[in-house]
Amino acid sequence: MFARPPSAAELDRHLDALQGLVDAAGLLTDPADMPRYERDWMGKFHGRALGVIRPRDTAAVARVLAYLNAHRLPVVPQAGNTGLVGGSVPDAAGAFVLSVDRMARIRAVDAVGASITLDAGVVLETAQEAARRAGLMLALDLGSKGSCRIGGNISTNAGGLKVLRYGHIREQVLGLEVVLADGTVLDGLSSLRKNNTGYDLKQMFIGAEGTLGVVTAATLKLFPAEAGRAVAMVAVDRFDDALAVLAAVRRGFPGRLNSVELIGADAVALVAGTLPGARSPFALAHTYAVLIEVGSDDADAGAQRGRLEVAIGALIEAGRVADAAIAQSDAQAEGLWRLREGVPEAVAHTAPVHKYDLTFAVGDIGRFIADCDLALARVAKGLRPVYFGHVADGNVHVNVMAPPGMQAGGYQALQGPIDDAIFDLVAQYRGSISAEHGIGQVKRAYLDRNRSAAEIATMRALKAMLDPNGILNPHRLLP
Amino acid sequence: MFARPPSAAELDRHLDALQGLVDAAGLLTDPADMPRYERDWMGKFHGRALGVIRPRDTAAVARVLAYLNAHRLPVVPQAGNTGLVGGSVPDAAGAFVLSVDRMARIRAVDAVGASITLDAGVVLETAQEAARRAGLMLALDLGSKGSCRIGGNISTNAGGLKVLRYGHIREQVLGLEVVLADGTVLDGLSSLRKNNTGYDLKQMFIGAEGTLGVVTAATLKLFPAEAGRAVAMVAVDRFDDALAVLAAVRRGFPGRLNSVELIGADAVALVAGTLPGARSPFALAHTYAVLIEVGSDDADAGAQRGRLEVAIGALIEAGRVADAAIAQSDAQAEGLWRLREGVPEAVAHTAPVHKYDLTFAVGDIGRFIADCDLALARVAKGLRPVYFGHVADGNVHVNVMAPPGMQAGGYQALQGPIDDAIFDLVAQYRGSISAEHGIGQVKRAYLDRNRSAAEIATMRALKAMLDPNGILNPHRLLP
Repeated sequence: MFARPPSAAELDRHLDALQGLVDAAGLLTDPADMPRYERDWMGKFHGRALGVIRPRDTAAVARVLAYLNAHRLPVVPQAGNTGLVGGSVPDAAGAFVLSVDRMARIRAVDAVGASITLDAGVVLETAQEAARRAGLMLALDLGSKGSCRIGGNISTNAGGLKVLRYGHIREQVLGLEVVLADGTVLDGLSSLRKNNTGYDLKQMFIGAEGTLGVVTAATLKLFPAEAGRAVAMVAVDRFDDALAVLAAVRRGFPGRLNSVELIGADAVALVAGTLPGARSPFALAHTYAVLIEVGSDDADAGAQRGRLEVAIGALIEAGRVADAAIAQSDAQAEGLWRLREGVPEAVAHTAPVHKYDLTFAVGDIGRFIADCDLALARVAKGLRPVYFGHVADGNVHVNVMAPPGMQAGGYQALQGPIDDAIFDLVAQYRGSISAEHGIGQVKRAYLDRNRSAAEIATMRALKAMLDPNGILNPHRLLP
Repeated sequence: MFARPPSAAELDRHLDALQGLVDAAGLLTDPADMPRYERDWMGKFHGRALGVIRPRDTAAVARVLAYLNAHRLPVVPQAGNTGLVGGSVPDAAGAFVLSVDRMARIRAVDAVGASITLDAGVVLETAQEAARRAGLMLALDLGSKGSCRIGGNISTNAGGLKVLRYGHIREQVLGLEVVLADGTVLDGLSSLRKNNTGYDLKQMFIGAEGTLGVVTAATLKLFPAEAGRAVAMVAVDRFDDALAVLAAVRRGFPGRLNSVELIGADAVALVAGTLPGARSPFALAHTYAVLIEVGSDDADAGAQRGRLEVAIGALIEAGRVADAAIAQSDAQAEGLWRLREGVPEAVAHTAPVHKYDLTFAVGDIGRFIADCDLALARVAKGLRPVYFGHVADGNVHVNVMAPPGMQAGGYQALQGPIDDAIFDLVAQYRGSISAEHGIGQVKRAYLDRNRSAAEIATMRALKAMLDPNGILNPHRLLP
C-alpha cells in the first residue's frame, strides 16, 4: 500500500533526476543539512531523509511529485515541522522530504474583502503581521507562531488560542491550492465567501496531514482587529458551577467571548508553587479556576469589564462562584493568564510527564476527570495528573506526572498502560483522542478507538483514490 | 456512469422487494401520491418517480440503498424538496425517490454543550423551535424554513439570512450520519467541537446534493439567542462608499454584525413603487442603499443603536454617506428590511424575470454591476436588471426583468443568451455562478466555467469512489 525507499544505486539516479526538476538551491543532500528536516523540534521523532527537496514554486512541486509518483518513491511533505505527533519527519527506512520552506511569499492581502493569499511556507507570525499592517487580524494564533508555517497549520487543521471565537483554520480557509500525488495542480485559490458549485474539494486536504496532497498556497479569511480585552478568573467548587459560569458568559457576551479556560486546583497550586511571580488570586483552594476573556475595542474596554463584573456578581449571588478576580489592568490580566499558560512549564519543572489532548461533550468533563483519577490510580501508585484546557470547546489537556522520585526512563515504561487507560475512557465517553494535534505516527494504533471500521475503510478508499501509489507521507495517520 | 431505470416488468419485482425492506407505510406507488415528490415547489422541474420510499429509520435507509445498489437502480434522495435548481426531483426517464420526510425525530438537545442532534427529515423551523425551548438558537435561517428539512439544508450547504455572522451550515455541522450507496452506515454523529482524528469525512457529504451518500442525521452547533437588534439604512452614491460603510461597521461591531445588504437604486424604487406601504426613507434617489443590522440583547439594544448612530455620523462627516435612517422601533426596522426583502416580490409583480445568485470578491461588485448593465444591453434592448444582496459576503442577486411588454413565453427564449452573458462575466471575475443554490440540473452545463478540468476530474473520482454504480441522484451536479 505504501511506496518503499529505493536502493542506494537507484537513489543516486533519482537525486540527479530530481536536481533537474528544481533550481540549484532546490535539493539538499549534504548530511550536515539533513538533521533539521529529519527530526522534530522536541527531538522525540527522527528518521532518514533520502534528500530534501525545497521547490521555489508550485510548478516545481508539481514536477517533483509527478516524478516521485512515477517512480513510486516515498515523500514526507514538511512545513514548519513543529507538530507534536511525528507527522512531518521521515521514518528510519527513509523518504524524501518535500519542504515548502522556500515558498514563503505573501501573494496578496485584500483589505476590502478581508482575506490574505499566501504560500504554504509563510511563517504564521509573518502572516499575522501582514494582516495587521492591513488593519485586520488573522484569527489563527498558536504558541509556535514564530516557526510554524501555514501549510502545516492547514494540513493539521490547527486550532490554537482563538478557536472558541473564530473556529479552527478549516473555518478560515476560503481557497486552497494543492498538488496531488501525480503532480496535478488543483487550483482552488479563491477569496469567495460563498460558492456552492460542486464538491468542496479543499475540505479533503485540510487536516489530512499531507497524506492526500501537498498544500502549496491558501486564501484565508481575515477579521477586524480588536484592541482590548476584559479578563477575569473565578473559583468554583463543583464542575456544574463551571458549567453555570460558561452558560452565563456565553449568553452575556455573544460574538465577543475569546476564551473560557478551566484549570484544576492541582494545576493552579503547581503553577503558583513553581513559577516565580505566579500566584493564585484566591485566598482558599477551590476545585477549579475558570479564566474568562472577552474581546473589546478601545471604546468599550471599560464597559466590557463592567459587564463582566455584573455577570460574575450574579453568579456569586446564585452561589455558583466562590471567589473572583477581575483584572483592572493588562498586567493583572497577564498575571491571571500566567496561571493557565504556565501549567506545561510548571509540570516540566516538576516531574517527567505524559501528555494528552482530549475532547469531550462539555457536560461530561467533570465525570471524566473523576473517572480518570480512579483509572490512573489503578495503573500505578502516585501518578499525579493535572487537568486544564479550553472548557467551552470540551478540550481537556491531561498532564500525567510521574510518581515522586521516578525518573524519565522508568516512567517511559508506564506510557503504554497510561495511554490504554486514558484512551479507553475517552472511547467510553465517545470523546476524541486528538483534539488538535492530529494522529501522525503517535496515535495511529489508537485511531480505531475513535473511528469506526466503516470510517477507516472510507479513509483508506480516499487515500487510494488520491494517492494510489502510496507515496505521500507513508505510514502516517492511517492505521 | 449512471444507473438506469428498470423495465416495467422488473419494476414490479423491485417494488415488491423494496416493500419487504420497509414498513407498510414506507413505500408509495399510487400515482395520486407521486406528484409532490416528482415536481419541485416552483413547478419548474418534474420527472417520474418509480416509487417513493419513505424509510422510518437509518437502518431501513441502509437496507434500501444496499438493494438499489446491488440492482443498479437510480434513486433521488429528497428532504423538503424546496431547492431552486431541480436537484431533488427525478428526471423524465424515472428514478426511485428516497424521501426522509418520515425521519423527523429530534434525537437530543444538549443545552450545556450547545448542540442539537436530529434526523434528516426534521423541518428547519421545528429544529429552530427546539433550540429556542432550550434557551439557544439554531443559526440557520431561510425563507423556506417552514418546509425545508435539515437533510436538504446540509446536502446543499445552505446559507440563508445569517451567513455573515454564523457561516453556512457547513460551519455548524459537528457530526453527520450518512448512508453510503452500498448501504454502509457512516456513523459520524458527534457533538465534539474539536476532533482531529483522521480525515473529516463529513465534509464530503455537505453540499454534495445527495450524489455521494444520503444524510440521515446530524449534530449541529447551537448559539446564544439574541433578543434585539439595531437596524439602519444609509444611502451612498458610489460603490466605493458602500465599501467604506462595510469597513466601518465590520470594525465597529466585531462579532455582532448580522447583515450588511446592498440594494441598487432601481430595486429600491421598484419596491417603493410596487408594494403597498413600502417607501424609501430617503428624499432623493441614490445609487445604492446599504442596510445594516447589528445584534443586541435586551440590556444593550439602546447602546448598540447609539453606537450605530455614531458610526454613521462619522461616515456622513467623511462624505461617504449621503443620507441615513436609523430605526427607532422594531416596526421601523421591519420597514427598512421590507425594502430589501420585498425585491423578489416587487420584481414578480412587474415583469417576467431570470434570476442569478452570484458571488464576487467584495471589491469587484461595483465593476461587475457596471459591466453587467453593458453586457445585458448587448443581449437585448430594454432588459431591466436589478441588483441586491449580501454585500459583506460578496453575494449579489441579479434579477433581470423582461423588456416592457414582453411576455414570459417570449422571454424564455432570451434565457440562454442572458445566462451566457452573465456567466461569462462571472468567470472573468473568478466569481461563483452559484453562491448558495447549488448546481442541481440547472447549472451542470456551466460548472466548467467555475471549476477547472482538474477539479471536475477529482469530483468524478470522488463520485466513482463513493457511488461506483452511479445510483445516487444521477445526472445531477456533475456535468
